[in-house]
Amino acid sequence: MHISTTLRHRRQRLAELIDFPVILWSGSSNSRNFPANTFPFRPSSHFLYFAGIPLQNAAIRLESGKLQLFIDDPHPNSALWHGETPTREEIAAKIGADDARAIAELEHYLENAATIPVQDAATWTQQSQLLDRWLLPQQPPQGNDLELAKAIVSLRLTHDAAALLELRKAASVSVEAHKIGIAATATAKREAEIRAAMEAVIIGHNMTTAYTSIVTVHGEVLHNNHYHHSLQPGDLLLADVGAETETGWAADITRTWPVSGKFSSTQRDIYDIVLAAHDACIEKIAPGVEYGDIHLLAATVIAEGLVDLGILQGKPEDLVKMDLHALFFPHGIGHLLGLDVHDMEDLGDLAGYEEGRKRSDRFGLSYLRLNRPLRPGMLVTIEPGFYQVPGILNDPKIRDQYQYLVNWERLEQFADVRGIRIEDDVLVTETGSEVLTAALPNQASAIEELAMQAKI
Amino acid sequence: MHISTTLRHRRQRLAELIDFPVILWSGSSNSRNFPANTFPFRPSSHFLYFAGIPLQNAAIRLESGKLQLFIDDPHPNSALWHGETPTREEIAAKIGADDARAIAELEHYLENAATIPVQDAATWTQQSQLLDRWLLPQQPPQGNDLELAKAIVSLRLTHDAAALLELRKAASVSVEAHKIGIAATATAKREAEIRAAMEAVIIGHNMTTAYTSIVTVHGEVLHNNHYHHSLQPGDLLLADVGAETETGWAADITRTWPVSGKFSSTQRDIYDIVLAAHDACIEKIAPGVEYGDIHLLAATVIAEGLVDLGILQGKPEDLVKMDLHALFFPHGIGHLLGLDVHDMEDLGDLAGYEEGRKRSDRFGLSYLRLNRPLRPGMLVTIEPGFYQVPGILNDPKIRDQYQYLVNWERLEQFADVRGIRIEDDVLVTETGSEVLTAALPNQASAIEELAMQAKI
Ligand SMILES: [Mn+2]
Ligand SMILES: [Mn+2]
Repeated sequence: MHISTTLRHRRQRLAELIDFPVILWSGSSNSRNFPANTFPFRPSSHFLYFAGIPLQNAAIRLESGKLQLFIDDPHPNSALWHGETPTREEIAAKIGADDARAIAELEHYLENAATIPVQDAATWTQQSQLLDRWLLPQQPPQGNDLELAKAIVSLRLTHDAAALLELRKAASVSVEAHKIGIAATATAKREAEIRAAMEAVIIGHNMTTAYTSIVTVHGEVLHNNHYHHSLQPGDLLLADVGAETETGWAADITRTWPVSGKFSSTQRDIYDIVLAAHDACIEKIAPGVEYGDIHLLAATVIAEGLVDLGILQGKPEDLVKMDLHALFFPHGIGHLLGLDVHDMEDLGDLAGYEEGRKRSDRFGLSYLRLNRPLRPGMLVTIEPGFYQVPGILNDPKIRDQYQYLVNWERLEQFADVRGIRIEDDVLVTETGSEVLTAALPNQASAIEELAMQAKI
Repeated sequence: MHISTTLRHRRQRLAELIDFPVILWSGSSNSRNFPANTFPFRPSSHFLYFAGIPLQNAAIRLESGKLQLFIDDPHPNSALWHGETPTREEIAAKIGADDARAIAELEHYLENAATIPVQDAATWTQQSQLLDRWLLPQQPPQGNDLELAKAIVSLRLTHDAAALLELRKAASVSVEAHKIGIAATATAKREAEIRAAMEAVIIGHNMTTAYTSIVTVHGEVLHNNHYHHSLQPGDLLLADVGAETETGWAADITRTWPVSGKFSSTQRDIYDIVLAAHDACIEKIAPGVEYGDIHLLAATVIAEGLVDLGILQGKPEDLVKMDLHALFFPHGIGHLLGLDVHDMEDLGDLAGYEEGRKRSDRFGLSYLRLNRPLRPGMLVTIEPGFYQVPGILNDPKIRDQYQYLVNWERLEQFADVRGIRIEDDVLVTETGSEVLTAALPNQASAIEELAMQAKI
């Protein structure tokens, strides 16, 4: 199917939901240390959803299913530096625009237009000036902007065929990156080398990383963006690395593997608990199921496992009610995945939370990013984990509060398990689910096998 | 030597040049598609020069050789997501700050302070608000800001020992990246795969690219940031890839090699002309020599070579005066290199051009980024090239104007030479020069040997 057909379908669906015009800006690149040295450009996801291709310094106006494109033709001198770039008319034809104009003409088409602020300050300032109202990306939308945001959420919550094609590509390249990462551990000396091997797979497919990679022997630091540690034989390496296709669709995969190629018995015990939680959650995914219940299922399976190992003491269900699981699993079971790795998180919880629902202030639930009944076509991550976070476990208040529920001495025997996470990307289908990242093994023995193959 | 000693020395030298206080902001990271998903952070180079380490959301105040650090302590919850990060006091001790305060206290220390606007809009807006004057990065500095800019230029124009240590590291990793890139050509099918192999070397050393890599079989597009072309046996691959160390110091290397491992005779002929220009320029580099003369030397050597090949007709010196060389070599011979790949280009031509000099409007000189007498400790690139840019060579006006000076039929025989550039990083020494990137061969036969080794 041609991209313009998909795009027409998307804007027709939008027109069924709202009756006012919409302008979406692509955004512009950010300068790094001087104007000609820019960070890689990444358009606004809302723009990408309706414009289909990564255009810079562009805007689209949508009304009643019609698309107007606003973009300037390349400067005549630009051919020397940037080669022949498509003209406005060529771009308009490609994306099926009904009309195409210079960006300066946008000012004549602003009336009653709703929008969503783009992340980069230059663009949201421009949006604010043109639409004559203050549009800050971190500020909840109001009026028609809010209606627009809700309409876009309802569209982007489930994926069409064109989106799924891209999401599968991203998943497949990310799977390959993880396989190469596990294999690279046989010879790598530092975290950075594993990261390099994994990102090279992504770059080699002419894709980018969808987010800053986490590749660390300190998986207990949840957003660890350092890569300088050397790899020791007893370490577990946690890699959370995902690709993004050229049109912006993301994957998000985490695997945890032993640097030596072989889990210690304590590492294996905990790994199997995390995997049990992972498998139970995926097993449960189906239309109508509450994602919040899946989170609680993960919490319960983890609590059960830790009780079995003698680390926690009590009834798993009671422990979960007291947030005991959250000492070791302090984040949510996952999130929406699409054009953004946390899809539509620029809109706060508008996408993640069903209307009328709010974040819990319970420690064990506050980081849950998705709280909705599942529907066919939703893509979510399932990513249970176990972490020994010093800031949590060494907190005297926590030690005191939970002194009889945690066997702290027993826990000490698991000192070589600092952080484990297993994350896959799961599509909700009509009858259940499909794991888009299933080609990457996650069983402990299969992970060991991948690691050991490289050592031979 | 401890970093704090270097930093103290730098700010003492600054204090010898100006007698007013200075505040430099580090800048903040830019959000990608939602606030938690950011582009990699890169501090302002002026900040890095005096603060030494990449701090985010920080400012330093310099006065009479004293350093005040303004930065907030990490949020107590940040340990969960980001691990233990150094406190304000630890950072202050590391960089030898005389005083350290929360960022909110900066407002009490603003009086008479000069500054340089940071590239990211959030930060330059904040600078403008705090200092109560409009500070746009693209606007030439005025008053004390201009005095500050000139003082910083005079410091950063030549590199101290600590800077050179970092610049050598960046050069060495970039040399390795190019060797791996040449070797990868034996099996790669697409440009993206060569790029991946090269950038993996940089990532594996826990460095970043100093600028968006150019890895292309269409070297005639000077800033080609596409990597989707397949590699054909007759193609030349042009790779302009450089590393940046963790504290921000850059390298900038270009090599051009045959995909097949063997230059055609026409490719070899042109390659040898570009290399002759490259070698002649480096031979000439010494204190006191005008960089503009080095550019003209490159132009003359290229014109001579093209006359010898029968592509140009006339006396080389006359052809250069008429900008004939610029049909094929339309850019400058190089630029300053340091914390920025085009060092201090955020200040316009303040660093690149000696006071009182302005850019030429001649086609063959207007892109010259450096026009100063050389001094020991300056690091410059030498990067002659030959390109068949369709936008230039197919321009009917140019065809007409130069119809008797270019042998267009002869030129057609060189159709397999679309773009060649050879770029090295050259330090001006007391007695001449030192090529920091000399470990990477540039002779045609040596390049072929590197390429062929991988094929075996
Ligand atoms: Mn995730
Ligand atoms: Mn250069």
